[in-house]
Amino acid sequence: MEGMPVSMGGLRTLPWYVAGSQVLGVACVVITGVWMGHYRGGYAWDGSTQEFNVHPLCMVLGLVFLYGDAVLVYRVFRNETKRSVKILHALLHMMALIISIVGLVAVFDFHSAAKIPHMYSLHSWCGMLTFVLFFIQWLLGLGFFLFPWASAQLRSWYLPLHVFFGLLLLVMSVGSCLLGITEKLLFSIMETYSRFTGEGVLANILGLLLVCFGVVVGYVVTSDDFRRPPNPEEEALSVHFKTLSEGEIPSSP
Amino acid sequence: MEGMPVSMGGLRTLPWYVAGSQVLGVACVVITGVWMGHYRGGYAWDGSTQEFNVHPLCMVLGLVFLYGDAVLVYRVFRNETKRSVKILHALLHMMALIISIVGLVAVFDFHSAAKIPHMYSLHSWCGMLTFVLFFIQWLLGLGFFLFPWASAQLRSWYLPLHVFFGLLLLVMSVGSCLLGITEKLLFSIMETYSRFTGEGVLANILGLLLVCFGVVVGYVVTSDDFRRPPNPEEEALSVHFKTLSEGEIPSSP
Repeated sequence: MEGMPVSMGGLRTLPWYVAGSQVLGVACVVITGVWMGHYRGGYAWDGSTQEFNVHPLCMVLGLVFLYGDAVLVYRVFRNETKRSVKILHALLHMMALIISIVGLVAVFDFHSAAKIPHMYSLHSWCGMLTFVLFFIQWLLGLGFFLFPWASAQLRSWYLPLHVFFGLLLLVMSVGSCLLGITEKLLFSIMETYSRFTGEGVLANILGLLLVCFGVVVGYVVTSDDFRRPPNPEEEALSVHFKTLSEGEIPSSP
Repeated sequence: MEGMPVSMGGLRTLPWYVAGSQVLGVACVVITGVWMGHYRGGYAWDGSTQEFNVHPLCMVLGLVFLYGDAVLVYRVFRNETKRSVKILHALLHMMALIISIVGLVAVFDFHSAAKIPHMYSLHSWCGMLTFVLFFIQWLLGLGFFLFPWASAQLRSWYLPLHVFFGLLLLVMSVGSCLLGITEKLLFSIMETYSRFTGEGVLANILGLLLVCFGVVVGYVVTSDDFRRPPNPEEEALSVHFKTLSEGEIPSSP
């Protein structure tokens, strides 16, 4: 059931998938903004429900949209050097991290002001697990790949785990958002949700669009058709580095 | 960021991952059974909430545990013929399909009896989308791989899509279950959920165990270390078949 290449039109379809992911990602951020801004009373930073409203917007923007884009850069910037793309990948993830910290502070502030216990729901457990693993993954990524702290052997051991957990964390981010949408709807409009009111339908559509964003990003980064082409110069340097780090004499200068 | 093999102890760790997945899967089914049986009043088939209780149990058993096991068979039965494993894969999916249909009938029956509108929540949208895609995927799988209705070229085009959607549907099943857990808790124990009551904590733990089951199954089927070894005899037959189907004369009998 494995080992055959994908063939959906090959590399020339990549721009369509990338464009699609961006339309979906922007739509998710805009719909979250409209939901909180129009239906839930807008934004503030005073411990009120308006401060809570900052939370969904930051999480969708940081842990879904920017996180997804950080994952995509290796497929989009195919011919730039690995080092440049790594720096962009790390920077986008740093932005995602900062924005999601703002989002977390907003919800903890709101809970404290309203005397609501923290961290009791499945949404909070999944969301916090996702955030903590993302922070660890970001630190390990910096240490292993951006700064030369790890040996080539250690890097090649960690790389597939970094890739696997990277995609897993996008899935967990999207899942946590969907749990948050369900929680928010049942806390706010439980009585009218079953009557297909505008707010309920809009939030459900947001959930489906978040799933679609995750699916498109997941497809682009896992499809064999869209893999980054090997760069002969970098490969040579990498072999050279590996040989030196293993204490052997390189066969050519 | 790609192209290097995983190295977590190689193939000899596979039995541990498979055993872990089974422990997690059985734990999920048992905890769902205990939650509905002990905290939610047991089971019945009379349109009452006891009939609703059949729904979570069937979905976790069918669309998560049996579905996950159906996905795992290609890694577990490594040396059996592809045809035998395909039949087992299709049979496990058929059991998953039948059990999940029972689970769907239970919740629709309950909604009708209690005069609750159908299909208004994000959980129902995601869950139904997952079920419909699963049914289509199962039919296409039968037509493409188990019965000789498709050409080798069509099979090799569809195979990676079947694999991608197969894993996506497991993720969507787990996600739909987590949405269902959140809905059920907020409908049943909204007042006490934030006080870390036994039922709320048990259901949250169920959610995390479902995520862990999905992660372990996902890791086993995507890791390069655990790929099914190519069978020279089957490869030869496949090439032979492909050559014949393309109307060329095979170079050897």
